[in-house]
Amino acid sequence: MPAKGDHDARRRDVSEAVWRVLAAHGFDGLTLRAVAAEMGASTGLLTHYFPSKKALVAHALDLAEDRTVAGRLTPSGRGMAAVREVLADVLPISDTAVEMNRVWVSSWDAALADPDLGARETGRYERIRSERLRPFVEQAHDLGELPRDADLDDVTATLVAFTHGLTVQVLFDPDRFPPERQLALLDGMLTALSG
Amino acid sequence: MPAKGDHDARRRDVSEAVWRVLAAHGFDGLTLRAVAAEMGASTGLLTHYFPSKKALVAHALDLAEDRTVAGRLTPSGRGMAAVREVLADVLPISDTAVEMNRVWVSSWDAALADPDLGARETGRYERIRSERLRPFVEQAHDLGELPRDADLDDVTATLVAFTHGLTVQVLFDPDRFPPERQLALLDGMLTALSG
Repeated sequence: MPAKGDHDARRRDVSEAVWRVLAAHGFDGLTLRAVAAEMGASTGLLTHYFPSKKALVAHALDLAEDRTVAGRLTPSGRGMAAVREVLADVLPISDTAVEMNRVWVSSWDAALADPDLGARETGRYERIRSERLRPFVEQAHDLGELPRDADLDDVTATLVAFTHGLTVQVLFDPDRFPPERQLALLDGMLTALSG
Repeated sequence: MPAKGDHDARRRDVSEAVWRVLAAHGFDGLTLRAVAAEMGASTGLLTHYFPSKKALVAHALDLAEDRTVAGRLTPSGRGMAAVREVLADVLPISDTAVEMNRVWVSSWDAALADPDLGARETGRYERIRSERLRPFVEQAHDLGELPRDADLDDVTATLVAFTHGLTVQVLFDPDRFPPERQLALLDGMLTALSG
């Protein structure tokens, strides 16, 4: 029986291989066979960790969530400046952000097809809105940077919609949307909502 | 040898079965086996039409494009009123629009993983912006409904971003985004851009 340290190291190896397959091929290419090949291991070994395709997908979503949360910046500004930092941090401006966004967008296929995976995404979206973004939208409102009568839930949902919808367009057409244009579009959006 | 009419009828049967599998299970569930089961036919028959998984996916994208284009309304209004009609027509407000959007969002997994399929989506997005929406954005500008100095390419990309990003949130959380809220968010967006 291997020592606990060996066991944990192997789990990390498996997770790293899952992430590399995911980053290169999306959920469409995420199979036990592909992860095994990435590790130079047998598919049989992988079935020990993932008894089903769904277990593999669920682990991949855990990895994506952990990496997304760990990679998030803490805004240095306040109010709309912080909102801008949070949303710019999501946009596919850096190679890392492109990779992360490709993983998330590609996850929607499986998430729409499976109620359990879909419920995870429902919860993740609600946390993005209510925990990640809304506190800074409220701060912006308190600072008088948003119209007094603005519905802050609506402002938050609108900003998330804009950011994710822009992200999809960028992923399919990076030449048309270089980083400076993405940021200019974000600034235009924030100015428009400031009223 | 079957008559030409039989051949065409069979092709339609195959396409109908592909669409039903797609609508129910997304691209994640689109396999030759699933289409064959849907038709009560053999997988062997299907390989006659689709020699590869990619050929099947490409046909499914053709079907989605044909149905999307055929289902589009012709705006009755002008300028921003027409913009609103075009974007409301995209939002997942009706059962048909939910089904169509689920298909498109689920297609992004395969499209991000395959350069040919990705190039199709790049072209489709450019047509949505430049052919479907921008003429009405220009009209709105001519009518004085947008700021005189607005960049119309940016306004168009922003509106598409908002609409598709909202669509994804709605698909994962329809209870939080009933049709009337979707339309209210769209109206808020159009008002914000009107400056």
